[in-house]
Amino acid sequence: MIKAMIFDVFGTVVDWRTGVSRAAAAYFSERGLDVDTLAFADAWRGKYQPAMEVIRSGGRGYVALDILHRENLDATLADFGLQDQVPEADRNDLNRAWEKLPPWPDCVEGLKILKQSYAIAPCSNGSIALMTWLARYGGLPWDTVLGAEIARDYKPQLAVYRASAAALGLAPEETMMVAAHNSDLEAAREAGLKTAFFPRPHEHGAGQAIDLAAASDWDVVAEDMIDLAQRMVSQD
Amino acid sequence: MIKAMIFDVFGTVVDWRTGVSRAAAAYFSERGLDVDTLAFADAWRGKYQPAMEVIRSGGRGYVALDILHRENLDATLADFGLQDQVPEADRNDLNRAWEKLPPWPDCVEGLKILKQSYAIAPCSNGSIALMTWLARYGGLPWDTVLGAEIARDYKPQLAVYRASAAALGLAPEETMMVAAHNSDLEAAREAGLKTAFFPRPHEHGAGQAIDLAAASDWDVVAEDMIDLAQRMVSQD
Repeated sequence: MIKAMIFDVFGTVVDWRTGVSRAAAAYFSERGLDVDTLAFADAWRGKYQPAMEVIRSGGRGYVALDILHRENLDATLADFGLQDQVPEADRNDLNRAWEKLPPWPDCVEGLKILKQSYAIAPCSNGSIALMTWLARYGGLPWDTVLGAEIARDYKPQLAVYRASAAALGLAPEETMMVAAHNSDLEAAREAGLKTAFFPRPHEHGAGQAIDLAAASDWDVVAEDMIDLAQRMVSQD
Repeated sequence: MIKAMIFDVFGTVVDWRTGVSRAAAAYFSERGLDVDTLAFADAWRGKYQPAMEVIRSGGRGYVALDILHRENLDATLADFGLQDQVPEADRNDLNRAWEKLPPWPDCVEGLKILKQSYAIAPCSNGSIALMTWLARYGGLPWDTVLGAEIARDYKPQLAVYRASAAALGLAPEETMMVAAHNSDLEAAREAGLKTAFFPRPHEHGAGQAIDLAAASDWDVVAEDMIDLAQRMVSQD
């Protein structure tokens, strides 16, 4: 019997591409800099997996995602030839773009329904700080924050899913992982958790080619967060 | 400028003595056992500080408070001559008394007001699991759970207050510790946090002799959680 539902956040709960691009557009346009901010958001996010991989593989001790985002921002600015135009203090502010990402429109309502029957928490690679400020920005009604910082490792390492369930005093099979990414659910299933999928076909923009549909027989496949909530509450 | 307020929970936010005594009364009366359940709650809680002290002093690695409570339950049952009358499975259920403690009547309303202006989180010696289930039981609107499990040590070790602020990406002085216990605030102040006090004159019952008033010039001294919220929001 499922007692908690834990969630991927970037892409599944919030629209990081729109949010980061919007924050970058506000910053660059104020300074008269002409930047393709969707490409900037994609490039910044593109450095996310390689940065975590160094930690997952043991090449570096755990540091919070905020630090990786900040390092990746420096590299992204250099890629765009902007390294001399963005001072240090501005970079710290710009890095907070990740704390102000809009939830997809179905999320707050869907999470509020799920919270009536299950403990709900992010199981994200974002830090406790990032998840907390993001929740306050978007009105996400989490019970607590779980995920990478609890485990001091990064998904899809199995320890992150298991530590998140254990932090609620639950067995893996009493916990359901929810994600719009099939690879996240593959790892969660391997860790012993139940799995739920819904697609976010515009996470990566109009030409998205991945994660358009469930790639396996996940325990629940839904349309979106509200549909998931209705399915989970009716079987509750 | 304060960005987060973190809270002692047992005594400050919830009435542990009434809650534990009520759960024990329900259990013992069903089995026809005549037990003074307020004395039982006091005895169980009396083993709390010594159990944590072993960990604080380095005599044992960090284990979550749920485990200490469970060990202390065994010892308390023995003290009351009940060791042969409460089977193992029942002890695990009885240990969950700590997840079902009533909030003091001013807490939910006061926390909701504070949450509009500040990130709010428990900074308790309770585990993430215990704090999460307790919040769900009582409707406590935390943004996340901080405290002992984040720091893997027990208050009043300064690391617990500092790790809780740091987990939100905040400096100690951007964080205010709220407690009905002067000793908790002494440590929080030493750790660099701002401090707020209000009394809980009935935490230990009618004859309570400690923590009836502020013992120092804490940054805020209030009547209760609602009064604290009104003071903090008016100065916001």
